[in-house]
Amino acid sequence: MALGRKLATEAIGTMLLLACVVGSGIMGVRLSQGNDAVALLANAAATAAALYVLISILGPISGAHLNPVVSLAMRWRGEIGSRDAIAYLLVQTVSAIAGVLLAHAMFDLPLLQVGSHTRTGAGQWLSEAVATFGLLLTILLARRHRPTAMPFLVAGYIFAAYWFTASTSFANPALTLARAFTDSFSGIRLQDVGAFVLAQCVGAVFALGIAKVLDPNLPTPKLLPETTPPG
Amino acid sequence: MALGRKLATEAIGTMLLLACVVGSGIMGVRLSQGNDAVALLANAAATAAALYVLISILGPISGAHLNPVVSLAMRWRGEIGSRDAIAYLLVQTVSAIAGVLLAHAMFDLPLLQVGSHTRTGAGQWLSEAVATFGLLLTILLARRHRPTAMPFLVAGYIFAAYWFTASTSFANPALTLARAFTDSFSGIRLQDVGAFVLAQCVGAVFALGIAKVLDPNLPTPKLLPETTPPG
Amino acid sequence: MALGRKLATEAIGTMLLLACVVGSGIMGVRLSQGNDAVALLANAAATAAALYVLISILGPISGAHLNPVVSLAMRWRGEIGSRDAIAYLLVQTVSAIAGVLLAHAMFDLPLLQVGSHTRTGAGQWLSEAVATFGLLLTILLARRHRPTAMPFLVAGYIFAAYWFTASTSFANPALTLARAFTDSFSGIRLQDVGAFVLAQCVGAVFALGIAKVLDPNLPTPKLLPETTPPG
Amino acid sequence: MALGRKLATEAIGTMLLLACVVGSGIMGVRLSQGNDAVALLANAAATAAALYVLISILGPISGAHLNPVVSLAMRWRGEIGSRDAIAYLLVQTVSAIAGVLLAHAMFDLPLLQVGSHTRTGAGQWLSEAVATFGLLLTILLARRHRPTAMPFLVAGYIFAAYWFTASTSFANPALTLARAFTDSFSGIRLQDVGAFVLAQCVGAVFALGIAKVLDPNLPTPKLLPETTPPG
Repeated sequence: MALGRKLATEAIGTMLLLACVVGSGIMGVRLSQGNDAVALLANAAATAAALYVLISILGPISGAHLNPVVSLAMRWRGEIGSRDAIAYLLVQTVSAIAGVLLAHAMFDLPLLQVGSHTRTGAGQWLSEAVATFGLLLTILLARRHRPTAMPFLVAGYIFAAYWFTASTSFANPALTLARAFTDSFSGIRLQDVGAFVLAQCVGAVFALGIAKVLDPNLPTPKLLPETTPPG
Repeated sequence: MALGRKLATEAIGTMLLLACVVGSGIMGVRLSQGNDAVALLANAAATAAALYVLISILGPISGAHLNPVVSLAMRWRGEIGSRDAIAYLLVQTVSAIAGVLLAHAMFDLPLLQVGSHTRTGAGQWLSEAVATFGLLLTILLARRHRPTAMPFLVAGYIFAAYWFTASTSFANPALTLARAFTDSFSGIRLQDVGAFVLAQCVGAVFALGIAKVLDPNLPTPKLLPETTPPG
Repeated sequence: MALGRKLATEAIGTMLLLACVVGSGIMGVRLSQGNDAVALLANAAATAAALYVLISILGPISGAHLNPVVSLAMRWRGEIGSRDAIAYLLVQTVSAIAGVLLAHAMFDLPLLQVGSHTRTGAGQWLSEAVATFGLLLTILLARRHRPTAMPFLVAGYIFAAYWFTASTSFANPALTLARAFTDSFSGIRLQDVGAFVLAQCVGAVFALGIAKVLDPNLPTPKLLPETTPPG
Repeated sequence: MALGRKLATEAIGTMLLLACVVGSGIMGVRLSQGNDAVALLANAAATAAALYVLISILGPISGAHLNPVVSLAMRWRGEIGSRDAIAYLLVQTVSAIAGVLLAHAMFDLPLLQVGSHTRTGAGQWLSEAVATFGLLLTILLARRHRPTAMPFLVAGYIFAAYWFTASTSFANPALTLARAFTDSFSGIRLQDVGAFVLAQCVGAVFALGIAKVLDPNLPTPKLLPETTPPG
């Protein structure tokens, strides 16, 4: 069954992505003697490397969305159907949380934790909107002009966004929710998750509009595909 | 309207580039406990990653100059017309300043600031001339020999130039002026901008000459194209 | 004699890989004033760069396994014969130890050392299983979908795994044993080697299974090839 | 005149390479508060980025040897003539020293300096032999199997070698001599230069032999080409 295989791929990919985001944050803080810039450098570089690998090897199977905002954008553009999009979202969310637990297990930490890192306020929300805008713009334009470079482009974008946004660029609702379940370097308070996800959605909608302005040849979104979407 | 679309592309690209240059500088200083080498490492790597992504995805639309010196060089070589070059310059300059404000907004800083970082003297000016010389030489030769690698070559060059020049390689008049509007890590005093821009122009002219020596097959500049330039 | 040439290639490659893993660890600790995050950043980046180069230049000759787990996986999939696999394992193990001695010689340290770095416990073993699982999954899927990107994918994966696993990702039995012969940054106690190797094998078997689920077109393993395998 | 153009290319390239090696070392030490690991990380990354760019854009014109050992190896393999090889060596040496002066000028330091950094002893010499062996092996095998990846392979190799050798991998006689003319981070005492160059030559000869063992299809060296070599 093709969809099952794709969901398994999204599950493995999202779990490993979160294990890397959270695990490299823990390792960075353990070793960096309080110099958080070194910890963030390692965290950003490890995350970028993981994204490059996961999108390269899993992209040909499931598209390697690993991110509900990406799946929703693909749905809005008619490239996947509604049922598949919902299944992707659920699997991504559950697998992201599993990835956080896996990181805790590897570092001998309590499996179940609650994030206490406050991330709120206008600057943080603007950061998430900008971060997600840039991520979607990169994906939409790269699909047209540089499809084979997609894995490296997403990796490069996320590395930059870790540093140029005040929120270190979550830009992914499943990842944001999952990071509420760790009290380590990359955690977030559960009550701050909602506004982050909202800001991410605003940024994504903005990107869909701007991409169409910059490149009118982007196909018009088809919200109601009459035929089963490819794949 | 094709030119409008190109200008919108340059605007988005230059704004995001400056948001990255200034934003990653702010983040670096906030986290690095006074170790400016770590801050500059993050600043340089984030800027290089942003350049790689922006030139990759925007290059096919507008050329992704993001830099008045590059647009003037393209004008000098007859690849764009005078009217387009002037429009590019204006849009790049305004968007660069907008990018600085965006970075300030993300980091909850006062939007309007004045740079106080002194950057003057013979070493700084020589650095800017060398930095811009190398950037233009890279672009001119890569267009002939490695066009598909252009985004990564420009990114790699700027990463190196952040470190091997004493000025950390501004190499871009619009970016230089815009950085006079931030008082953070990457700022510059307004009165130091003029000499930087002059040095950048000297380096660019030198590059246009040397490139022609190294590669005589580079087409001769056409300052007065008789027909509308392509694009 | 083709096999001899391949074994010489594996010998040179594994020796240089270990010289890099151990040597860059020594250099990192010497220079980093106790900030182990900076040492690990250098160690991980140097190892990734070495893997990228070695797999690129040696892959066309011997496959550049440089790792008994990789050779065994290739044997299990029927791509090399049993005799070759055993020869690869022996050469990789001896050369890995030679690479450690080479690093000691370059840094003017006693050639023969015994590792004293304790690496044991459930978190470490889980880390090694996850690290090896990810490495094998990367190799198996990349061979099908991105063969030319293999050197960079393995390098990127190992860089990430240095940071996201608690063990810094040995993921290689020959390398693990060899690192028991250094008392520097990258060392391990000899009595901790066995469990690491066992965990690595578990992770590898898991990867062989999951890869087949994600991509059913992967050829079925042929444990008893009737004809001499190619190469 | 073709040779003149090639020599100009080698001159620009070697000068910029040395400006980067020395300049990024000065910048790293100025900013890193005595944490030499951060300085070396910046130094190595900037050097690798510069090599990637210079070999990419200058390789199609002169081969971008930028290193007497590379030019001699190309001569030994009959790919350039003796007259050209000698001219390359002279130009590389003079331009390397010019690059050091350029770095000093950019950083407002005395132009003429004498290196005082002691680099001697068996470990250092072994390091230089290993470093040059690996560099030549990379170049010889990459020319056969991965010619388009050459710039990135050399960059990746040198990044790794900065860290895994005790000498930080000079691996280039012109660069070694030139670094005797700076008293900054990357300097060397003049009396230590001779042994470094000798060790580099030993490593290079070893690489020429091993490359032929690993890949018997490498063409046999032609020390006395009967016809004018191409280019």
